[in-house]
Amino acid sequence: MLLDRISCPADLRRLTPDQLDELSAEIREFIVEVVSTSTSGGHLGSNLGAVELTLALHRVFDSPRDILLWDIGHQAYVHKIVTGRLRGFETLRQADGMSGYPCRAESEHDWVENSHASTIISYAHGLATAQASDQGEGRRVVAVIGDGAMTGGMAYEALNNLGASGSKAIIILNDNGRSYAPTVGRMAETVSRLRVDPRYVRQRAKVEDGLRKVPYVGDHLAWGMHGALAGMREMLEPTAFFESLGVKYTGPIDGHDVVGLEKALRHAVELDEPIVVHVLTDKGKGYGPAEQDDVKRMHDIGAPKPGTYTAAFTEALIKEAENRLEVVAITAAMPDSTGLLPFAEAHPGRMVDVGIAEQHAVTSAAGMAMGGLRPVVALYSTFLSRAFDQANLDVGLHGQPVVFCLDRAGITGDDGPSHHGVLDMVLLSKVPGMTIFAPSSYQEVQQMLHDALEITSGPVAIRWSKTAAPHVDEAEVGSGLTARKVATGTDVCLVGVGKILPACIEAAELLEADGISCTVWDPRVVHPLDPALVVDAASHPVVISGEDGYRDGGVGATLADQVADIALERPAAERPAVRVCGIPTTYLDQGKPDAILSALGLDGPGLAAEARRALGR
Amino acid sequence: MLLDRISCPADLRRLTPDQLDELSAEIREFIVEVVSTSTSGGHLGSNLGAVELTLALHRVFDSPRDILLWDIGHQAYVHKIVTGRLRGFETLRQADGMSGYPCRAESEHDWVENSHASTIISYAHGLATAQASDQGEGRRVVAVIGDGAMTGGMAYEALNNLGASGSKAIIILNDNGRSYAPTVGRMAETVSRLRVDPRYVRQRAKVEDGLRKVPYVGDHLAWGMHGALAGMREMLEPTAFFESLGVKYTGPIDGHDVVGLEKALRHAVELDEPIVVHVLTDKGKGYGPAEQDDVKRMHDIGAPKPGTYTAAFTEALIKEAENRLEVVAITAAMPDSTGLLPFAEAHPGRMVDVGIAEQHAVTSAAGMAMGGLRPVVALYSTFLSRAFDQANLDVGLHGQPVVFCLDRAGITGDDGPSHHGVLDMVLLSKVPGMTIFAPSSYQEVQQMLHDALEITSGPVAIRWSKTAAPHVDEAEVGSGLTARKVATGTDVCLVGVGKILPACIEAAELLEADGISCTVWDPRVVHPLDPALVVDAASHPVVISGEDGYRDGGVGATLADQVADIALERPAAERPAVRVCGIPTTYLDQGKPDAILSALGLDGPGLAAEARRALGR
Repeated sequence: MLLDRISCPADLRRLTPDQLDELSAEIREFIVEVVSTSTSGGHLGSNLGAVELTLALHRVFDSPRDILLWDIGHQAYVHKIVTGRLRGFETLRQADGMSGYPCRAESEHDWVENSHASTIISYAHGLATAQASDQGEGRRVVAVIGDGAMTGGMAYEALNNLGASGSKAIIILNDNGRSYAPTVGRMAETVSRLRVDPRYVRQRAKVEDGLRKVPYVGDHLAWGMHGALAGMREMLEPTAFFESLGVKYTGPIDGHDVVGLEKALRHAVELDEPIVVHVLTDKGKGYGPAEQDDVKRMHDIGAPKPGTYTAAFTEALIKEAENRLEVVAITAAMPDSTGLLPFAEAHPGRMVDVGIAEQHAVTSAAGMAMGGLRPVVALYSTFLSRAFDQANLDVGLHGQPVVFCLDRAGITGDDGPSHHGVLDMVLLSKVPGMTIFAPSSYQEVQQMLHDALEITSGPVAIRWSKTAAPHVDEAEVGSGLTARKVATGTDVCLVGVGKILPACIEAAELLEADGISCTVWDPRVVHPLDPALVVDAASHPVVISGEDGYRDGGVGATLADQVADIALERPAAERPAVRVCGIPTTYLDQGKPDAILSALGLDGPGLAAEARRALGR
Repeated sequence: MLLDRISCPADLRRLTPDQLDELSAEIREFIVEVVSTSTSGGHLGSNLGAVELTLALHRVFDSPRDILLWDIGHQAYVHKIVTGRLRGFETLRQADGMSGYPCRAESEHDWVENSHASTIISYAHGLATAQASDQGEGRRVVAVIGDGAMTGGMAYEALNNLGASGSKAIIILNDNGRSYAPTVGRMAETVSRLRVDPRYVRQRAKVEDGLRKVPYVGDHLAWGMHGALAGMREMLEPTAFFESLGVKYTGPIDGHDVVGLEKALRHAVELDEPIVVHVLTDKGKGYGPAEQDDVKRMHDIGAPKPGTYTAAFTEALIKEAENRLEVVAITAAMPDSTGLLPFAEAHPGRMVDVGIAEQHAVTSAAGMAMGGLRPVVALYSTFLSRAFDQANLDVGLHGQPVVFCLDRAGITGDDGPSHHGVLDMVLLSKVPGMTIFAPSSYQEVQQMLHDALEITSGPVAIRWSKTAAPHVDEAEVGSGLTARKVATGTDVCLVGVGKILPACIEAAELLEADGISCTVWDPRVVHPLDPALVVDAASHPVVISGEDGYRDGGVGATLADQVADIALERPAAERPAVRVCGIPTTYLDQGKPDAILSALGLDGPGLAAEARRALGR
């Protein structure tokens, strides 16, 4: 195997074109083998598409002296393999294993490990500025960004500033013609066929007419699912687009021709100004299942896994939208994993995909609400941080009835520090007028979405984790804006947010076995808290709260504060001790969610131990 | 006066072109009179530039049935005057007076009151989507956005999505050729002269060569102060830029010719797709002082007011940068009000203005730090909310030594709800590894900036208010990461963050007069808290904290939590009562900062009263 002989990028530079082709095939086989057999999963298509591009980059540039940067980073597997990480690659995304993203602790070839999209041109601008300053060391700065990430506003801010500054940085636009959502992919593929026509720049009008005639695409041009076209339009006139921002453009280049790629990169190096090198790659190249028709993929992976919180949302949203014609759904390039695809099928034309553009998604939702619609914004919890200002001032200040449905809340696991959803409750509870629901069961998701649409008139959020949702009887489902008392006792009051409720119930069982009488509450509405819950909690000597978000500034902190307010009127000896259990403010590594929660004391034994400590036992 | 006869937009439609010119002159005179004699100030230039544009909009469109939207909103004075708010306009920006922005409580003609930039195209997209849906009412949607706001990524996300969706909205690009920062203005004016040449689209290369030869502009092209050019580049090729995003373009139109404007607007209305109408206006038109040379303006308003926290920062940054060649400053289109202009003069080429692009500013700073520079990012506290995700994942996760210098922290006053800086401590304390300083004096700003650069190696923030800073003796200045004990007592421990320290000292005097013995601490470092402060606080029966940020999730909440941790080991009767005083989570109206703080109990009497309540007296 050639692959065994590659221990650093310099080894690549000795290979002939034929050997590079051979190596590319070996790398594809290796990645498919590792990812498809791993229990921790991984990103296949984007990495299979970037094999030749990565080899060319490492042959032309001298990493780590030259700086290679990867946007999002899940396209960096090949980079990892050729920078000495072939051994150990099979531990990808496992606890204590190799990160699924670049990781500075792993290698001096890695610089950026944030896996939120559209940031990399800004890093490149900063690094290029440093190189151009008196402190500079003459390193070359190269950043790889996908076409999907080009829909993010940050990428534009950075290109605009890079073009104005004239700082030398090479931006590789890795254009695989599809974002990772199947709906987007479908249209992108259509565009892609037109795009390879060398006359496309002169033919924009014809191309657009053509697009309107393509079944499915044309139907959705008026409104709904526009993300792909949004992402693709600039591709139709790339020179004009980039050069209007002051950045040179070259391309498109065949992304699977190492020799051609190297030639283009060497040409880009010679230029003394910022340049975009537009590279066309096939996502999933060399692997049948990933290359197959996207309509098939859509049906394969479009529907959420049965029994999950996500599936409960999908089912509930479809049902609510039947009687409420004003309900529309908004996604930021994630219609599949947020569970919206079946909704889009059931209610055609009522889903809007804005691309990787959370800020715009949220403010556009505020505008839709002002116009009489009832927008449901489906995002990952971690990506809400991108649009906090918009949630606060555009939705909140205007009191608009936007419903935020946040998936992947809490500890998400394999994707590492930048994917945990630990901030949503901290942030949204600081939006005046916001109501936040945390469902603890499949049925609660449905009840809460119904109540969000039926009884609230301002901004609302519902947040859940990526996990199976407990199925419960009707008697165990609350309603409205009230908390639900699960058990009644006298010594300890346990309050469990969403997914942590079962841990509180388990803790209560452990404590009761020792003769400690426990109350358990499901708060349901974690902001603002039900006063009945707060008053009842304050009647116990010890209160324990558990949540899978940051403990500082979260739900338990508010409970502690409100209990202290009530207790202030009492003699000091009669004031409850409130112990807030949650996620510490730290960057948490990858691992299985339940293992991480247990390590943080957010399981039955951990919460019971905290109760005993507070009781002085 | 014609102006007296205008009580609603319909009245405008009856005027002749000559009368419109007369009315325009009257409106200008009126606005200059009100703003220049008001103690609450106001935005003069942007409103004087928008007189004819506003009249034309209200003649062509039928507000409030048609929807007129204003980005940022401080350009909406004329809109307010012609929609029935001539009476009362003299109370602009005063407590209980008229808002300096559109305000839904004032008028059905107002829709959006968030004054953060670059949001309006997203609102327009949302509203246009609603109009195009089955729920639509056929209202026309028109949004006015300035050229400066076009550097914000949200505007691009929205244009891209608007273009892809094809939804009908009319975007008015009010291009006055200068953002409100003088440096940016200077260059924009230069560009403006070239821009009016009808051949400009075909002459980009020549124009750029020309720019490089303009003194000052050319010198700063390599790096530093690029904001203006960034904002202007797209203006050089507006058709290509907008049409590559799928949005039609028409212009440029003379923004002071009502008849010509109306013609262009009526043409835009006829089109069944999104269109940008590019209007050229003169900021400050008709008012000598605002039209005068920007270099003069730069010297007039460039230096911060002596004795303020901002002035302390300016002085300290210039001094620190003398010995630290790696120090650079970054601003997001506010080099003047953040105090950076004198720095840019003292250290040429070491300030980067990225335009209204906080997200990019923060991540670019992370890149600069990775490249060996020491970036100081100077922002208003309220605008940090735009870049929280970037501060968390790009700066924080990578442990980069970026120094955030946050001006206008706390209650800012005249600008209303979206300008208060009440979130910075809540947000930044949730960034793992972040150190946050809150100076209580002029001298502390200087000490803290020095220490931030000298002794910390990770992310740091220093936050201060827009106010005069107390001048203190050397003995009253702390150092390093420690808190400073101001007074020692036994009954009550008062902890005052930054500007609130004097209120705590006053409260202590009031309490001591009643025989209540008080300790007072200046925490200085509000995150993480000095353990010596926490331990000492926990030795008092009552602890009172005061901060001018949201109390939930802020500094006092952390103090209460840490004191509770220490006290848990004691008998319940010996645990302190910690009372957290801060800003409630609500949208606060305009008013004078000290009056607002007093109304919230954040003054000496208010804090003393809270202490008495906790003591049971």
